Amino acid sequence: MPDAYLVGAGQSDYGAFPDESYRSLFRTAFEAAAESVPEGFDKDAVDEAFIGTLGVGGRQLGLSGPAVTEHVGLDGVPCTRVENACAASGFAVRQAVQAVKSGMADVVLAGGFEVMSDMSSDATKYWLGVSGETEWERLSGTTFSGVYAQMASAHMDRYGTTGEQLSRVAVKNHANGAKNPHAQLGFECSLDDAQSAPMVADPLNLYHCCPTSDGAACALVVSEAVVDDYTDDPIRVAGVGAGSDNVGLFDRETYTAVPASQRAAERAYEMAGIEPTDLDFAEVHDCFAIAELLAYEDLGFCERGESGSFIESGATELDGELPVNTSGGLKSKGHPIGATGAGQVVEAFKQLSGKAGDRQVDSPHRGLTHNVGGSGGAAIVHVFEKEQEVSAP
Amino acid sequence: MPDAYLVGAGQSDYGAFPDESYRSLFRTAFEAAAESVPEGFDKDAVDEAFIGTLGVGGRQLGLSGPAVTEHVGLDGVPCTRVENACAASGFAVRQAVQAVKSGMADVVLAGGFEVMSDMSSDATKYWLGVSGETEWERLSGTTFSGVYAQMASAHMDRYGTTGEQLSRVAVKNHANGAKNPHAQLGFECSLDDAQSAPMVADPLNLYHCCPTSDGAACALVVSEAVVDDYTDDPIRVAGVGAGSDNVGLFDRETYTAVPASQRAAERAYEMAGIEPTDLDFAEVHDCFAIAELLAYEDLGFCERGESGSFIESGATELDGELPVNTSGGLKSKGHPIGATGAGQVVEAFKQLSGKAGDRQVDSPHRGLTHNVGGSGGAAIVHVFEKEQEVSAP
Repeated sequence: MPDAYLVGAGQSDYGAFPDESYRSLFRTAFEAAAESVPEGFDKDAVDEAFIGTLGVGGRQLGLSGPAVTEHVGLDGVPCTRVENACAASGFAVRQAVQAVKSGMADVVLAGGFEVMSDMSSDATKYWLGVSGETEWERLSGTTFSGVYAQMASAHMDRYGTTGEQLSRVAVKNHANGAKNPHAQLGFECSLDDAQSAPMVADPLNLYHCCPTSDGAACALVVSEAVVDDYTDDPIRVAGVGAGSDNVGLFDRETYTAVPASQRAAERAYEMAGIEPTDLDFAEVHDCFAIAELLAYEDLGFCERGESGSFIESGATELDGELPVNTSGGLKSKGHPIGATGAGQVVEAFKQLSGKAGDRQVDSPHRGLTHNVGGSGGAAIVHVFEKEQEVSAP
Repeated sequence: MPDAYLVGAGQSDYGAFPDESYRSLFRTAFEAAAESVPEGFDKDAVDEAFIGTLGVGGRQLGLSGPAVTEHVGLDGVPCTRVENACAASGFAVRQAVQAVKSGMADVVLAGGFEVMSDMSSDATKYWLGVSGETEWERLSGTTFSGVYAQMASAHMDRYGTTGEQLSRVAVKNHANGAKNPHAQLGFECSLDDAQSAPMVADPLNLYHCCPTSDGAACALVVSEAVVDDYTDDPIRVAGVGAGSDNVGLFDRETYTAVPASQRAAERAYEMAGIEPTDLDFAEVHDCFAIAELLAYEDLGFCERGESGSFIESGATELDGELPVNTSGGLKSKGHPIGATGAGQVVEAFKQLSGKAGDRQVDSPHRGLTHNVGGSGGAAIVHVFEKEQEVSAP
């Protein structure tokens, strides 16, 4: 199985941009990705593209992949839209890896985008609901925060997880996001701020929920045959794992774990030949604070039920043993659905390239990204690994 | 690059099925595909799934891939929804081939589905419009038949193609579809019927347009390592080619060709090492009669501008030199958007397995499928080839 390499990645700012379109945001991300390639990048080299977007708003619905690749001048390049709800572009990155490993492409663009700020809050509520199950969740009135609130309640009930532990996810991620110029909510918040926020879906308050966002992100994946043209310091896609599950939470075997994430992580670790303790940082899917805690357990960062005390220990802070969501995560950096998975890869690329600025982890060698579709109907995990020893940033 | 093989394919009936759901139709297709595998098939062997659907109707919108694979019991299997408008499941089949060639999977399900009959004709008009460009086509009132009508008008103006030649596409495809028990419009039509039908979008009349359909189709693609477990008579995926283009017709370099199809065909022929004359049959994308004529030219079956006389010659009839749309095509078999590409592969599988009943082509060795997204924003071509010499059916 030939190796695939990450040679560039970039994103737009995340936020609300009434003067931008999905195409202009995508162009910004594509250009940032191209500019990030150490030895330079010519778009004519792109053999193929995979674009993630949920895209059920009022704009281009069918063929939204080719609609953005044509806008950045990738004329005639095969382009496929990939959609697995909030994991859309995480899966797009996976398809790029498969395309390279298949021998059918040497240079592949994986990206994603979403524009959400131009909809009313009711429309957004409806729209996000489409990532849940239709008949028994969305159409019966369960909001997406409501789905995750059920998971949080179950975890609190079973393991004694507290609201304060949920709030610590927000405090940590805002502290990181305040160091990320692309972050939508790039400000710090205190534990008191996070604890006293208005309730959204009990037990999840406003600081336990990510914002709705506009944004785009792109990653460039190449084959072993051409990687030397793009960098002297390659980042290998060491592991890829995907999993799925019943789309409806009510239909799943457990409320206190995300089995799709567990399956994805097991497969990625096996392919990379590593254990969770071999990781130097991770970007995990924290659409709601409980999702980050579940990820700690599902990805093997701590034992089942112990994520609350794990975050309290400071282990996942920027200077902890395993920094998580150094970008600010979905909570602070933002969550433009289709862009999120590729945006996590942008952070992994920056960290492994020593270009994460004030939030740089000390000499990372290996990092993980974890992207979840819906409440766990699909999940995707990547492990990225520097080929060479890293000098201190 | 390791080879990929088609070992099974099956579909539901195409039509209007108010008593079925997208899930039940998908199950029918999946079970038919599993049953078609010569040496038997166990669903537990499936490593991965790719599901095509446009799916902008009122049902499961996000995660609609995992929503159908969970329904057929593929618990935890990585599943990715693929969408390139009407080419959704053609691209899903391509992803299955890439997954196998990448070495990341041995047994891959590629399928698709759509339910369209439960919408009003206005909703359907809107819905199909999403496969065109948004701002300058759909939102400015251009229907999808209107887009293809412009292509037909341009072809008639430039090459002298006639309405009667368009009607011959319908006559041929209905003659074939009348022999296909899965066909939605499984009846013959005379040239007079086709010529005297009411106008839809001048010059395209009702018989120049495919119906809206409910349906699902599935194909099973496996690696060289396991193919012998499934069949003694393998069908190799000899060529795969994809292409894209500007999504809006008005933005494209020509109205009298589909450049994405040309690019896809060139790549597929090159990979297969064949010429169009090496084909024994083809399933092409005839959403409108002009689309089939354009396909003859784009795929190199005849010279540019000569598709009208090519169909008049009888070359593409069931007993012609290159039978086209033996299944009945989109026109007679039906066009449940997300199912169509995989449904074409079902016909290729049946023909190459000698199981196409009354529409069986004489001892075919090699066949092509051609699936177009929108009016040509994306296109995908596959070439399937029997490994062994074929005995007469």
